Amino acid sequence: MSSMSPPADENLETKEINLRSMSSSYGQAPQAHKVAIPPKQNLFKEFQATIKETFFSDDPLRPFKDQPKSRKLMLGIEAIFPILKWGRSYNLKKFRGDIISGLTIASLCIPQDIGYAKLAHLAPQYGLYSSFVPPLIYAVMGSSRDIAIGPVAVVSLLLGTLLSNEIDPNTHVAEYQRLAFTATFFAGITQATLGILRLGFLIDFLSHAAVVGFMGGAAITIALQQLKGFLGIKTKQFTTKTDIVSVLHSVFSTAHHGWNWQTIVIGASFLGFLLFAKYIGKKNKRFFWVPAIAPLISVILSTFFVFITRADKQGVEIVRKIEKGINPSSVKEFYFTGEYLGKAFKIGIVAGMIALTEATAIGRTFASMKDYQLDGNKEMVALGAMNVVGSMTSCYVATGSFSRSAVNYMAGCQTAVSNIVMSVVVFLTLEFITPLFKYTPNAILSAIIISAVINLIDYEAAILIWKIDKIDFVACMGAFFGVVFASVEIGLLIAVSISFAKILLQVTRPRTAILGKIPRTTVYRNIKQYPEASKVPGVLIIRVDSAIYFSNSNYIKERTLRWLMDEEEEEVKGDYRTKIQFLIVEMSPVTDIDTSGIQAFEELQRSLEKRGVELVLANPGPEVTNKLYASSFANTIGEDKIFLTVADAVAYCSPKVVEEP
Amino acid sequence: MSSMSPPADENLETKEINLRSMSSSYGQAPQAHKVAIPPKQNLFKEFQATIKETFFSDDPLRPFKDQPKSRKLMLGIEAIFPILKWGRSYNLKKFRGDIISGLTIASLCIPQDIGYAKLAHLAPQYGLYSSFVPPLIYAVMGSSRDIAIGPVAVVSLLLGTLLSNEIDPNTHVAEYQRLAFTATFFAGITQATLGILRLGFLIDFLSHAAVVGFMGGAAITIALQQLKGFLGIKTKQFTTKTDIVSVLHSVFSTAHHGWNWQTIVIGASFLGFLLFAKYIGKKNKRFFWVPAIAPLISVILSTFFVFITRADKQGVEIVRKIEKGINPSSVKEFYFTGEYLGKAFKIGIVAGMIALTEATAIGRTFASMKDYQLDGNKEMVALGAMNVVGSMTSCYVATGSFSRSAVNYMAGCQTAVSNIVMSVVVFLTLEFITPLFKYTPNAILSAIIISAVINLIDYEAAILIWKIDKIDFVACMGAFFGVVFASVEIGLLIAVSISFAKILLQVTRPRTAILGKIPRTTVYRNIKQYPEASKVPGVLIIRVDSAIYFSNSNYIKERTLRWLMDEEEEEVKGDYRTKIQFLIVEMSPVTDIDTSGIQAFEELQRSLEKRGVELVLANPGPEVTNKLYASSFANTIGEDKIFLTVADAVAYCSPKVVEEP
Repeated sequence: MSSMSPPADENLETKEINLRSMSSSYGQAPQAHKVAIPPKQNLFKEFQATIKETFFSDDPLRPFKDQPKSRKLMLGIEAIFPILKWGRSYNLKKFRGDIISGLTIASLCIPQDIGYAKLAHLAPQYGLYSSFVPPLIYAVMGSSRDIAIGPVAVVSLLLGTLLSNEIDPNTHVAEYQRLAFTATFFAGITQATLGILRLGFLIDFLSHAAVVGFMGGAAITIALQQLKGFLGIKTKQFTTKTDIVSVLHSVFSTAHHGWNWQTIVIGASFLGFLLFAKYIGKKNKRFFWVPAIAPLISVILSTFFVFITRADKQGVEIVRKIEKGINPSSVKEFYFTGEYLGKAFKIGIVAGMIALTEATAIGRTFASMKDYQLDGNKEMVALGAMNVVGSMTSCYVATGSFSRSAVNYMAGCQTAVSNIVMSVVVFLTLEFITPLFKYTPNAILSAIIISAVINLIDYEAAILIWKIDKIDFVACMGAFFGVVFASVEIGLLIAVSISFAKILLQVTRPRTAILGKIPRTTVYRNIKQYPEASKVPGVLIIRVDSAIYFSNSNYIKERTLRWLMDEEEEEVKGDYRTKIQFLIVEMSPVTDIDTSGIQAFEELQRSLEKRGVELVLANPGPEVTNKLYASSFANTIGEDKIFLTVADAVAYCSPKVVEEP
Repeated sequence: MSSMSPPADENLETKEINLRSMSSSYGQAPQAHKVAIPPKQNLFKEFQATIKETFFSDDPLRPFKDQPKSRKLMLGIEAIFPILKWGRSYNLKKFRGDIISGLTIASLCIPQDIGYAKLAHLAPQYGLYSSFVPPLIYAVMGSSRDIAIGPVAVVSLLLGTLLSNEIDPNTHVAEYQRLAFTATFFAGITQATLGILRLGFLIDFLSHAAVVGFMGGAAITIALQQLKGFLGIKTKQFTTKTDIVSVLHSVFSTAHHGWNWQTIVIGASFLGFLLFAKYIGKKNKRFFWVPAIAPLISVILSTFFVFITRADKQGVEIVRKIEKGINPSSVKEFYFTGEYLGKAFKIGIVAGMIALTEATAIGRTFASMKDYQLDGNKEMVALGAMNVVGSMTSCYVATGSFSRSAVNYMAGCQTAVSNIVMSVVVFLTLEFITPLFKYTPNAILSAIIISAVINLIDYEAAILIWKIDKIDFVACMGAFFGVVFASVEIGLLIAVSISFAKILLQVTRPRTAILGKIPRTTVYRNIKQYPEASKVPGVLIIRVDSAIYFSNSNYIKERTLRWLMDEEEEEVKGDYRTKIQFLIVEMSPVTDIDTSGIQAFEELQRSLEKRGVELVLANPGPEVTNKLYASSFANTIGEDKIFLTVADAVAYCSPKVVEEP
């Protein structure tokens, strides 16, 4: 059936051929291979290729190729509504997985939704509304099989903070809601636009490290916010700021008269229960459903307990009222004129982008775990459409929830039908069960939120980041402390700024390395990494580790000259040495060069000439080769001084090195 | 005295050694070289090295090393005032060169200054003021030997446009001047701050191509502005906009009654003279002084002509009055409070940055022509100090002028003393000669400006940019048309945006290439560039051409998987082929990797495992190797699957490839 290859004699042949190739480049025989000038492409094709790699790198039109028109139309509709595609092969076995996972995430989402709505300073039913309509839209348009859609803690907090900067949610309830729906509308528009314009890669500019820090900080902030409900603090003077100093000050200044011990007892015991459930779920993956249903059980038990003891008369704050019935329309509530339009637009962009970051990270993670392809831009269109429709039906920004998606995955979800199941359960809850939440103590909701956001503090990721990349760790901590000690916006700003600074640093200060020959090979490597590699007398070999663009061309030129000066200084200090007479620039990593880069090389060449050093290039890539010839710099240095490998270049230089007494 | 090396027998030895090395990697013998894990650096050293390469890449403290304290102090003072250093070796021969070049640039700068001041909507003497104080300050602090300091056309235009957006220069002359001095002050502060904080590299973010386009557009705009003076248009309704449509409309709508034929005759004949002088200077480098003194001759001749014919009574506009005497103090005129403070600050930053861009480009060009080192950050401090002092002595933003620096260089300047000579001449002019400019016709100043800015239209550079890099050309044209058809600010905004977009594109969409084996070598190269290179059956070799960071890690992962899918598709379509069983990632160009990059590799590895493809790495660099081990990803894929070269990796994979029927 199968055999090993290549056979032994082929191996021998290779050896012989290698010998010949080596002798040809080390001896006086003409070189075996010149650097090839790649076939000239026409301008249109070149542009097309660039556009394609930038915006259509995932080749979304591939299935459309060579298909009849009717089939293309069908494929187009399927691309927008993937449910039409996977729906055809849907079966009972898949449904069994979906119904179990759908029920599990529904039991988890209902108490969370009620709590998260409070983070956004909205009435509890709005959290439930946002778990009813958006998951339905996503189910028909989205292509992730594992994501669980609904309100999430961080976006709720962010939206609540940004909105309440504009309108006081306590005194102007109606205006605040209108602003929230308008912002949600623009969040959806932002997401869909990014997807349609295929600008999805923009969210990659927020680095993983910054996101880890931001999420951790947001989790701490959210947990701190819950102290008010958890401790039963009633005072109206509780701070509206979110930084740790203000919150703790508010908490402790009310310690003597504001705390309510009954609330604390209820809250603490159920928080203990929730954390224990979490521990069990973590200890044994088979019991993943324990932490998933623990919140609902807590809600039921505590509600029942308050109802029979009437603890609310002892000062235990309860939910009191959740509006019955499904989402009312909110189309007419948008601010489409006036000063709030611009504000809602800005808030929508920020909240939409953060929601996208979270949903995309979740989508990618689970797609890679189950090994299916996810079109990021199409996902964004689906998420955007879902938030636009949501904003018209009294929902606020929904996105993928990490904790619920993980539960969904572990409960064995097969398709987005689990979201539909969850949505139906939320529908039934809204229609029939909301009055039962009347006696649910607020402390339970706080406990549920605290136990949920603890997961966002990903200290293991932070440790790994510390181990791998110290600058990343600075970004991570910057975002974290920014959120905790200042505010969500400041933390976010720090995260984005550090991410950009890192990118700019990368393009302005590329690495360069001195190469040496590894003993008994023709391989030239960085002498810092391979201390046994030896320099070639009279020849300095430098590798430039980046495309040479305007942003770094001047640095590369000056850095190269500095390497040369360093080398010459060593000569003067050290014993007898041969003066550097050749500078070989290894261009393998130089993928591209622009006009400024060519100019820098011309200046370098001029400086080298004055010092009596000859410039030699090794292995320029296709783009670079083309541009060297287009700019006639190849002629300036001489075409015969461009080699395929460093070894070839050394073979050319080494015999010409003149030794000085 | 000297002999050729290495000798012939060493050559033979190399050959033999190569054979041994090859056999060791192709046979079953243990490998000669493993990928080295570089020696661990401590955290502090690592940070220090990064900071050093970012901010002190030019190693400015090198001469201070190992010096006694008093010498260090002396060196420090010399670093701030380089004149103390080169002044010691100054001699009469150098002075001869400097006095000739100083007189030449003075004769060129006096008429230019008067014209440029008008571009900035300031009275003519302010141009002369700015050629008196700033060159003196630069001469003691600057380190370029060739730059000629003073007002320049583009900065004058930019400053005039930005300032007149805030205050009308015709109706509020005093306030406008105050704003101009305040903006100049902040321009100087910006420049000095960038230098002191060693952030000089920030100006590298404006790409050469964008600058070429911007300068060309500004030149056209300036020339168009001169039409008013050149045609003797008197109407007050002449547009204040700078775009070509508005200006030409204003020009032609006044054609019937507004033009003055006497003015046109004077202007056109002297413009002809100036252009002819330029032509002579270009034709024969020996006559470089002809275009340099032609403007002054024009001014003298035309002034004399108007004086004797009293053409000003025929409607020929004349200068009328230039204030006599040197710069008055302007310290008390700054806006340090009120709404204009913020505006002056913003205008100062923009004008200061553009002035820096021009001065730095000039400094670098001439330094590389004469092969001396220039410390960019020190230069910025000198330019900043000069503008701060200038702003206190009634000067507006001065910088290096390209045309005058070129004349300075060709006239044989040796040091910054030529700037001092020029400054003295300007001083004498201000003290004694200004009244003589009374009858100078404005049309001559317009002609001088037109002939000066023509040089800024660098169509040769634009053609070269077109040849080398099409995207650069788009940036160039974008900036050009932005300035010409919209405004200077819009053009500048386009230039900066396109420059940044290119950087972001570079980091988000790095190139990847499929490698093949070049016949009769062990070298693996891009098969697009080397069509004769052949793929290895069952093995796909991909080279990633960039550091792998959060901004591109996801793209690289997906692009790699797409290469694999493309390859598999070809298999299905094509004849019998061996299924891909190994994926070798050539990591030579991957200079660094961050946490997101490691994560992407983990996901890639997981996807590959599901497809039955083994991941093998070749030649990771020192940073990458460290991080592969720190994150324990090296263990995940197996340390024995990381090779020094692609050839070694192929030697490992190839025998294991299983052929299918």
